[in-house]
Amino acid sequence: MSSESSYSATSDRADASRFPTAVYADRLARAAQVAERSGIDGLLITPGPDLRYLIGSRADSFERLTCLVVPSDGSPPSVVLPRLELASLGDSAVSELDLPVHDWVDGVDPYEVVASLLPETPRTAVADAMPALHLVPLTRRFGALPALATGVLRELRMIKDQAEIEALRRAGAAIDRVHARMDEWLRPGRTEAEIATDITAAILAEGHTEAAFVIVGSGPHGADPHHEVSDRVIESGDIVVIDIGGPVEPGYNSDSTRTYSVGEPDSRVADRIATLEAAQRAAVEAVRPGATAESVDAAARDLLAEAGLADVFVHRTGHGIGLSVHEEPYIVAGNTITLEPGMAFSVEPGIYFPGQWGARIEDIVVVTTDGCEPMNRRPRGLTVLPG
Amino acid sequence: MSSESSYSATSDRADASRFPTAVYADRLARAAQVAERSGIDGLLITPGPDLRYLIGSRADSFERLTCLVVPSDGSPPSVVLPRLELASLGDSAVSELDLPVHDWVDGVDPYEVVASLLPETPRTAVADAMPALHLVPLTRRFGALPALATGVLRELRMIKDQAEIEALRRAGAAIDRVHARMDEWLRPGRTEAEIATDITAAILAEGHTEAAFVIVGSGPHGADPHHEVSDRVIESGDIVVIDIGGPVEPGYNSDSTRTYSVGEPDSRVADRIATLEAAQRAAVEAVRPGATAESVDAAARDLLAEAGLADVFVHRTGHGIGLSVHEEPYIVAGNTITLEPGMAFSVEPGIYFPGQWGARIEDIVVVTTDGCEPMNRRPRGLTVLPG
Repeated sequence: MSSESSYSATSDRADASRFPTAVYADRLARAAQVAERSGIDGLLITPGPDLRYLIGSRADSFERLTCLVVPSDGSPPSVVLPRLELASLGDSAVSELDLPVHDWVDGVDPYEVVASLLPETPRTAVADAMPALHLVPLTRRFGALPALATGVLRELRMIKDQAEIEALRRAGAAIDRVHARMDEWLRPGRTEAEIATDITAAILAEGHTEAAFVIVGSGPHGADPHHEVSDRVIESGDIVVIDIGGPVEPGYNSDSTRTYSVGEPDSRVADRIATLEAAQRAAVEAVRPGATAESVDAAARDLLAEAGLADVFVHRTGHGIGLSVHEEPYIVAGNTITLEPGMAFSVEPGIYFPGQWGARIEDIVVVTTDGCEPMNRRPRGLTVLPG
Repeated sequence: MSSESSYSATSDRADASRFPTAVYADRLARAAQVAERSGIDGLLITPGPDLRYLIGSRADSFERLTCLVVPSDGSPPSVVLPRLELASLGDSAVSELDLPVHDWVDGVDPYEVVASLLPETPRTAVADAMPALHLVPLTRRFGALPALATGVLRELRMIKDQAEIEALRRAGAAIDRVHARMDEWLRPGRTEAEIATDITAAILAEGHTEAAFVIVGSGPHGADPHHEVSDRVIESGDIVVIDIGGPVEPGYNSDSTRTYSVGEPDSRVADRIATLEAAQRAAVEAVRPGATAESVDAAARDLLAEAGLADVFVHRTGHGIGLSVHEEPYIVAGNTITLEPGMAFSVEPGIYFPGQWGARIEDIVVVTTDGCEPMNRRPRGLTVLPG
């Protein structure tokens, strides 16, 4: 792969990859305001979800510094990047926002360029994802360790606007279409890996730009929430956990789990999964503005505890989702954050019997003014496929 | 996707994904020795190519700290990681190396766990890839900014051993097989994007675990070394640059460029590409132990300059390759590093005529005791396909 280039815009690229420019202008203005309130002189945002959030850029440069500088004093944000990466801005809103671009060539110290855009001895905050490769020299240059920008950006990224919610709806509908086709692939005699290959192709075919994760946990493998895929062959009678998702343009993720039975299930197993379905429903019904994150976790956990299943629900109830598959808010005991309209997260209780089987039911929900809207609409109970 | 888990080894995963355990034992010992010579008390290595190099782990945790701690005093390296990620070690050599594992659960401060494995006020060096999310709290805990571990690890990673060279050979042969099939896809009337989709499938089918990059630069797009793919339709008479690659197990990358003509080329264009082929050959012939990186760059550049093409060769001649697509050594003016047997890098001069066409020829080579071995063996000149 070539390593250097002169500028050339990729102007004929079809573009569903970002929101209207005004969205980014608003986000940048709010980020600067929150930074100012937090006593930060400037945000330094390298490639990753924060950069995509603020300017729509999917740049992924590593070895050479690309950095959005957002001063909190109201002066315009600007982009520092290697001249050979100028074309990467074609994907972003930088040009339409008319942001100043400071390109640099080998031999120039890019950290000096960043410093020139900030006050002397600035108080800065950096993206979580900034690699040590850049943070170490920036810290040396400023003589002070930056803070993490998450404190500023969390407040913005956690509340999704209408365009973001629409993207999450499209992602949810796309992954629902994959679950709807599960009977094409999930059959006795096939391996988890073979099924995962088919699911991966369907995730792409149904409109995702990537299959970010594909978990096929059959039989005893379903009892490990982090099992991914193996060469185990599906047998008649298996309970199978399918947890799948990925991003749709402009970068928002799906994430949905359903549990399948290959052939008719044992009635005791079916009863327990019905209890899990009730627990998932109880947690979804607990979601509304003003409720705490931990109260949603408790709604699922209490119902499972009443059924004697407290010990087999070994993980938190959910995680926020958006440009990242895992982000705030986390739906977990101890998280007293108050839910607000626009927050998006998974509700995914599970029950796990080591060496035997497991089950999990997962929807993404978005908080509305009086409850929540599910992004996933497939039947939630145990789906019985031919065995 | 579920967020937490109890331990479960994925013991039935087929495994070509790492080298024999002794390879990692040797790398860890040498890393500790080089760290000690550099005055570093401990290396702190988070997920990324350095972690894969040292223990064969493909862990990619982000929000919770996973960190290999390599003390330089000869005491055993150990791994700090979240309990829910314990299963990720199943991919690595950690168990066979019998390395201590310090797993932590929510509520524990993982930075304190790291600190407990090092002397008071340690001098540390961190992986380039460590995100600010972890480097900021570690710096606060230690009261001093770590150095970058690249200075230590460069020396090791730059010289490939026989097993690494064999992996690069397999990667090279795999991407050669993709280039050999180009006539199936590269035809007038098809878009660059359609062709790229076919190439991506072939890269996977020929044994790569991922298509890391696919550049189809047709006609004027070939004049931009960083053009990737567009909806431009191939026309008869187009010159097309195809630059493709990705990793094969255990993680080593291919990267090869060939230039194609769709239909018979203009004779002046063909002459210039013949000159480029001679420049690429001259650079390959300049590769031998004791030569400098910049002398290889100069060999290609001087030949192009003699033909009046100096101004259209707008990038460096090459980059090292291995677990990363771009790593040291860089084959560029000003790099006086002396080549040694086992170094692996691209040799890829190109010529670019903005608005018209471009061409690039790229092989990976590995330095031998008396020259170099090419990893790519497809014909290097302009390949004429039916137009």
